[in-house]
Amino acid sequence: MVSSKSEPRFDTVIVRFGGEIGIKAAWTRRLYERKLIGNIKAFLKQRGIEHEALNRKFGRLYIRTADAQETCQVLNNVFGVSSVSPAIRTTSQLQDIIENSVQVAGSALKEKHTFAVRCRRVGSHPYTSQDVCRTVGQAVLDADAKHRPRVDLNHPDLSLEVEVREDEAYVFTETLKGPGGLPLGTQPKVVGLLNGDVDSLVACWMVMKRGCPIIPLHFIEHQQNKQSQRRVLEAAKTLFKWAPGFPAKAYVVSHEAYIAEINKSSNSTRKLKSVLLRRLTYRVAERLAETWRAEGIVTGDSFQKPAGEKLHFFRICDEAATRLPIHRPLIGLDAPEIEELAERIGVSGKISVERKRQKVPRISIRGISLKTVKDAEAKLDVNKMVELSLESLRTVSL
Amino acid sequence: MVSSKSEPRFDTVIVRFGGEIGIKAAWTRRLYERKLIGNIKAFLKQRGIEHEALNRKFGRLYIRTADAQETCQVLNNVFGVSSVSPAIRTTSQLQDIIENSVQVAGSALKEKHTFAVRCRRVGSHPYTSQDVCRTVGQAVLDADAKHRPRVDLNHPDLSLEVEVREDEAYVFTETLKGPGGLPLGTQPKVVGLLNGDVDSLVACWMVMKRGCPIIPLHFIEHQQNKQSQRRVLEAAKTLFKWAPGFPAKAYVVSHEAYIAEINKSSNSTRKLKSVLLRRLTYRVAERLAETWRAEGIVTGDSFQKPAGEKLHFFRICDEAATRLPIHRPLIGLDAPEIEELAERIGVSGKISVERKRQKVPRISIRGISLKTVKDAEAKLDVNKMVELSLESLRTVSL
Repeated sequence: MVSSKSEPRFDTVIVRFGGEIGIKAAWTRRLYERKLIGNIKAFLKQRGIEHEALNRKFGRLYIRTADAQETCQVLNNVFGVSSVSPAIRTTSQLQDIIENSVQVAGSALKEKHTFAVRCRRVGSHPYTSQDVCRTVGQAVLDADAKHRPRVDLNHPDLSLEVEVREDEAYVFTETLKGPGGLPLGTQPKVVGLLNGDVDSLVACWMVMKRGCPIIPLHFIEHQQNKQSQRRVLEAAKTLFKWAPGFPAKAYVVSHEAYIAEINKSSNSTRKLKSVLLRRLTYRVAERLAETWRAEGIVTGDSFQKPAGEKLHFFRICDEAATRLPIHRPLIGLDAPEIEELAERIGVSGKISVERKRQKVPRISIRGISLKTVKDAEAKLDVNKMVELSLESLRTVSL
Repeated sequence: MVSSKSEPRFDTVIVRFGGEIGIKAAWTRRLYERKLIGNIKAFLKQRGIEHEALNRKFGRLYIRTADAQETCQVLNNVFGVSSVSPAIRTTSQLQDIIENSVQVAGSALKEKHTFAVRCRRVGSHPYTSQDVCRTVGQAVLDADAKHRPRVDLNHPDLSLEVEVREDEAYVFTETLKGPGGLPLGTQPKVVGLLNGDVDSLVACWMVMKRGCPIIPLHFIEHQQNKQSQRRVLEAAKTLFKWAPGFPAKAYVVSHEAYIAEINKSSNSTRKLKSVLLRRLTYRVAERLAETWRAEGIVTGDSFQKPAGEKLHFFRICDEAATRLPIHRPLIGLDAPEIEELAERIGVSGKISVERKRQKVPRISIRGISLKTVKDAEAKLDVNKMVELSLESLRTVSL
């Protein structure tokens, strides 16, 4: 028997993607699974993880690799993955299962820990699942007498899982939760408006999680403000960590050519200026989205900011972009919920310093009516401004 | 000393509403707190709970009532409340604090339980917070010797909390989490499109949680389908359990007058029909929202349903309503996340049977372009249809 204290050599990763993909119609499911497998391969390639051919069976994916632990960390970031487990693969011979289970348990059990053995079985074997639980449990107790482990079926410190799949078996103790959602690329593209806020990153991430590739678009007022631009683009890079295989590019558009004119026309009221700029932003984003064949625009708006009438602001700004919907995935979330997501994504606090500095004002626009805005726009050559902005378009490789 | 086994008489509820309300500017915070207090009073009045004047101090709300436990259950449903605790109020005399703490601990401690005493103090007293923890802890140990309680400051079974506030003190053990969010009515109204889906209820609830009162609007194709209507309205009632004091009304609009014409014009393609109807729905909703001075329209759309190109569908439908934004708070959520919210709200499974029966088709509209839709609409008198729908408007008291 293998010594119970040597480190177990996990050689396989079990990937579960049940959840939502599972409930789709057969042809959609095949499409989604193929996309998911493609995305997983792109992740592994990017991290330089070597693996054998991916094996899809029994509604799961089995990846043979020497870096099982690291693979699990990586797959933790693949949309559509519901959970992963690093496992040891063995034959379905009971003796092999026992030996490997004892090894895995031996390295994981601490002094006085309790454990439970659970078994799931597909195929026909000379033993039942109950037999596996009983014999493996006894072997673990016998092998590790000095740590005095005990069996506790309800709240064990360690859950030793055995999955028998026809002539193979997998032994594991850990199940890490993936992000869930749908595989990236199974839904149409959307344009993500990135400003200096973490919120805009979280909003983009939520839509990516639902399968939509994001085209990041950042608007600036002055080319000079290089540092601020760099930080936003740096943050956009974090998003593409979730999207290997997708073109990691961002786009920057400048309001510079006419910002003086806007300032003049809005009589230095920051309120009006913020609305005029936002409407121009939407108009330009809409034009670009159409060129890029994107199906919508995503923003990080919510009611977080101390900006009296946010909904009113949305209404008079959205009126400028009528051909594409503007999606605000954060609109129903609380500040702590958004913060929690930001931490999960790895963007928490990443660009929040920008908040105070950024030029797009976050202020109450109480009292500004659509008519005021349209009157102000009538005195400007809005179409030309849109064209000027489109000319300023720059592509940035992240 | 009071017998340690008599049931403690909780006479006060401590309401915390820190979180987001706390970070608002001073005048916004006062406005929000006033709204929150008004909403709390409406809840308590509706449930017939008697209480003394609400006492706002130290950034919290103290409610004196004989029904402290029930009050906590009720306040669990008030948007803007972050947590509540049923407490015993006493003087800030150390002896009083000890007696009440021993009573509370005595009734809550089970055999061999561990406990910890925590104290927070505002004001000047002849003792420190440390003194309170030490003397109360000792008194609990002495009073309940037969249950052999032990002190465990890190992971106690029971946390005995003492809050000293100038000449008063509060003793409690339980803190129940409220829904968070912002007080209902601190944001503008929105129109909520209710169909037969639980999702539309969840979407409305999320926006209510962010402070927006909802005006429920339900569209039908045939007046005859009474049962389906009744179920949707029954479900809408659940939403108003979260909004006492707000007018519990829903509105029903019928496409009946022209449904035959739509059926004919769309050549019996369900795809085109669904788009034409949805666009009419948005047009009518927009008109009504403007009348009602609502700032947007909320729907329960997401990518859950097996409907190929959801974003494409949103785009060609939204194009019909250009004056008001259409908000989709569920767009970034997974099916399990929506289900979890539905359970929290109390609408899980409530009207899901409707899904199979409802007439608005949930199908892929792959291949339908905006041009196709506009061509079909050009052959119809869309404006008259909107007017016919507006005439069919019925108000239903819930």
